[in-house]
Amino acid sequence: MENINRNLFFPIKNKLNIDYIKDLLSDLVVSNKFTNNFEIRDISSLSNLRDNSIIFLNKYINNPDYNSKEIHIITDNIESENHCKSITTVKNLNTAYNKVLNFMYYHEDQIGFQDEFNLVNGSYISKFSKIHNSCEIGKNCVISRGVTIGSNSIVKNNVVIKNSLIGKNVIICDNTSIGCSGFGFDFNKRGSLNFNPQIGIVIIDDNVHIGSSCTIDRGKIDNTLIGKNCMIDNMVHIAHNVVIGNNACIAAQTGIAGSVLIGDNVTIGGQAGFSGHITIGENVVIAARSGVTKNIKDNSTVAGFPAVDIKVWKKNLVMQRKNGY
Amino acid sequence: MENINRNLFFPIKNKLNIDYIKDLLSDLVVSNKFTNNFEIRDISSLSNLRDNSIIFLNKYINNPDYNSKEIHIITDNIESENHCKSITTVKNLNTAYNKVLNFMYYHEDQIGFQDEFNLVNGSYISKFSKIHNSCEIGKNCVISRGVTIGSNSIVKNNVVIKNSLIGKNVIICDNTSIGCSGFGFDFNKRGSLNFNPQIGIVIIDDNVHIGSSCTIDRGKIDNTLIGKNCMIDNMVHIAHNVVIGNNACIAAQTGIAGSVLIGDNVTIGGQAGFSGHITIGENVVIAARSGVTKNIKDNSTVAGFPAVDIKVWKKNLVMQRKNGY
Amino acid sequence: MENINRNLFFPIKNKLNIDYIKDLLSDLVVSNKFTNNFEIRDISSLSNLRDNSIIFLNKYINNPDYNSKEIHIITDNIESENHCKSITTVKNLNTAYNKVLNFMYYHEDQIGFQDEFNLVNGSYISKFSKIHNSCEIGKNCVISRGVTIGSNSIVKNNVVIKNSLIGKNVIICDNTSIGCSGFGFDFNKRGSLNFNPQIGIVIIDDNVHIGSSCTIDRGKIDNTLIGKNCMIDNMVHIAHNVVIGNNACIAAQTGIAGSVLIGDNVTIGGQAGFSGHITIGENVVIAARSGVTKNIKDNSTVAGFPAVDIKVWKKNLVMQRKNGY
Repeated sequence: MENINRNLFFPIKNKLNIDYIKDLLSDLVVSNKFTNNFEIRDISSLSNLRDNSIIFLNKYINNPDYNSKEIHIITDNIESENHCKSITTVKNLNTAYNKVLNFMYYHEDQIGFQDEFNLVNGSYISKFSKIHNSCEIGKNCVISRGVTIGSNSIVKNNVVIKNSLIGKNVIICDNTSIGCSGFGFDFNKRGSLNFNPQIGIVIIDDNVHIGSSCTIDRGKIDNTLIGKNCMIDNMVHIAHNVVIGNNACIAAQTGIAGSVLIGDNVTIGGQAGFSGHITIGENVVIAARSGVTKNIKDNSTVAGFPAVDIKVWKKNLVMQRKNGY
Repeated sequence: MENINRNLFFPIKNKLNIDYIKDLLSDLVVSNKFTNNFEIRDISSLSNLRDNSIIFLNKYINNPDYNSKEIHIITDNIESENHCKSITTVKNLNTAYNKVLNFMYYHEDQIGFQDEFNLVNGSYISKFSKIHNSCEIGKNCVISRGVTIGSNSIVKNNVVIKNSLIGKNVIICDNTSIGCSGFGFDFNKRGSLNFNPQIGIVIIDDNVHIGSSCTIDRGKIDNTLIGKNCMIDNMVHIAHNVVIGNNACIAAQTGIAGSVLIGDNVTIGGQAGFSGHITIGENVVIAARSGVTKNIKDNSTVAGFPAVDIKVWKKNLVMQRKNGY
Repeated sequence: MENINRNLFFPIKNKLNIDYIKDLLSDLVVSNKFTNNFEIRDISSLSNLRDNSIIFLNKYINNPDYNSKEIHIITDNIESENHCKSITTVKNLNTAYNKVLNFMYYHEDQIGFQDEFNLVNGSYISKFSKIHNSCEIGKNCVISRGVTIGSNSIVKNNVVIKNSLIGKNVIICDNTSIGCSGFGFDFNKRGSLNFNPQIGIVIIDDNVHIGSSCTIDRGKIDNTLIGKNCMIDNMVHIAHNVVIGNNACIAAQTGIAGSVLIGDNVTIGGQAGFSGHITIGENVVIAARSGVTKNIKDNSTVAGFPAVDIKVWKKNLVMQRKNGY
């Protein structure tokens, strides 16, 4: 996984080290141990452990890198302490995440996030974005700090792009929003003041087509990824941390919940929905209006809600009809 | 229910009294009676009876206030005449509503509605709106007459807000539309010329998060209400006169039809749908892709379409699987 | 069918004749025959054969006009050669379509499409559009080349209209996109570089209401049509080449796939979906959340997925309930 420079999108508000974190979380800390008060420069996730970073873990998963790298763990699982050399145990992990991230980074869901724009041919283009000069950008767009767009890409009108790296030959149609905040918060503690800072980005590879009025949210810590040659129709919602392989075709009004992983060459009919955190294999076909709730193996074709093998779905329909349906 | 000042949003086009109304509806009037030709300054609804107002009733529901207050009734139910002292009976109530409201108010679905805007940092802000100076407003937004926004709220880019009162710490994400016209007309007489004037507003309480590409329509006469701490994901549609309690969580692509009442602490999965005019209790959980067609009691968990208790829904799935599904 | 002047929307990039086409497709041509190297000025479809045009056919359907008019056929069906006097047979029809259309026309999905705008009262209005002076246009709209809008129409804010003819008294609500590219490409050859040029338009008749955040895509070669008095709610998606008769009512979040034909006086509930290329009769009622997969006869009422007669659907629900559901 490419290590993007997060600070191009989310400027550092306050530099941190472990001592600061302990103070910041003083009302939440259960226990704290560390030997080396190293500087904290980034946030890690389980799939992307970075030196001089902090990681939030809701359970202990053994990983030698926790101790070999300069990584400080924050957890609500007291058991982890035995295994890790640099660790803070807290009462409420979600609150700790919000406190640390809001202290450390500027982001658009808190007052104070800043950008500087030029009005260029009717669109607001951040001074801190890089758009290849072969691109065509329509009117009333907003392209925010850190965004890069590769050659020959076309952005139509009233499009919002933030926190994204966009490849070559990408087409983004009218009224679409890319790189917006994912929908993340503690279900037991709602309200905008408890919103989890979302500090990942969206990466869209070359030759992707994205229709009108789509929403593609950025990752929470890692990134939302759309592979090469993906064809996305209108009003498709793609939540934070979704990873879509190459050559997907996604028809209109489909919604993909957070952290879904989709393999290469997948075809998805209109108005389909996906539960979060599931894995869809390669070459899968998902019929229109399917509600996919479980992992789907490579080369499957599924339909219905909950989605099952399409042959089973059709057999069930035949059976219902025999019974008068 | 707070009595908002409707005229901040919908300026009075013509002052009315009962005599004028009788003339205006001359081709529709069946009978007419009144003793006191009082001034009409507002429209009442059954849940909010106001002095010096008119009310449109498609059936007679006994209410002493009809006679104790200065309220003139317009109805297509001839029986009502016996009970009310100030009443006009008409042949087509819907046409009467349109005629009276279009005569009385300026609104955005008729030519002639006016507002005055300043272009402020890339967004059009009505001179007749009040935005707390701590708020952050993105680019290409339109904030229309009468709108107020409380402190520390964040409005992202390409957002349209009209006919709304927005609380503190509210976050409204890109490409969302708030306070737009509800979908109201006589099913037997279609076309934009027969559109029912929508002259209620949207009230959004403190600490609400609203995702990207949502639509929240204003009330027809009363208001659409979103309670404190509600968390609303992307592409959620909330129709006119919906009332949502505090702490709701509504996942992406859910649609809530007109006049649905939702209690506190409700959780709604993605792509759910609600029939109009139903009541959802407190602490209800509605699974993703549910189609809710009836009232739901407090503390229930429902799933499926039509939505039923989730245990029944799961049992039915098990049964189908036994039969080969 | 009215012969719109396609070039008002899609300027000619290169004039063509049959010899040029043969050269352009040299790597795809299987065989080629013609007697008269006539000028190619337009594209025909089966339902609209035009003189001096080209037509792409994936099977041979007998039609005397192929030979009586100046029409050159491009096909991947070798059998057609025997019947037609002017025909090129190619290996990949879809690639041929893309090559010819991208060579012949400027369109918004390729670099180089141009328009010229005036900023009028906060919206970008093409110099090549015609908007009746009685219309009211909100802020942050984009109205592109070739668009005409009839008298007393209201376009709210942040609306994008391109490649469309709009009638009188039409209301188009905030954040809606009309005339955008349909979702067309060879399923076996994905990616924006293989996108099929969409060079039809959208025609919206008088007195139509279109809600917020809708997407109505233009036709591929022919047009997307919305009849008089249609009432369309928020977040409705209408794909390319859909034809909707007069007086339709379409509730929120419904999606209509490509080339669906819908008769007059149809009522469609919220969150319904339609498979592509089906025909819905007159006076049909489609319940909310229906998934319509087949043709529906006049005067039917259907529900469910796949949608069936609503009585059958209800009977099936009763049966499920008897079994404990």
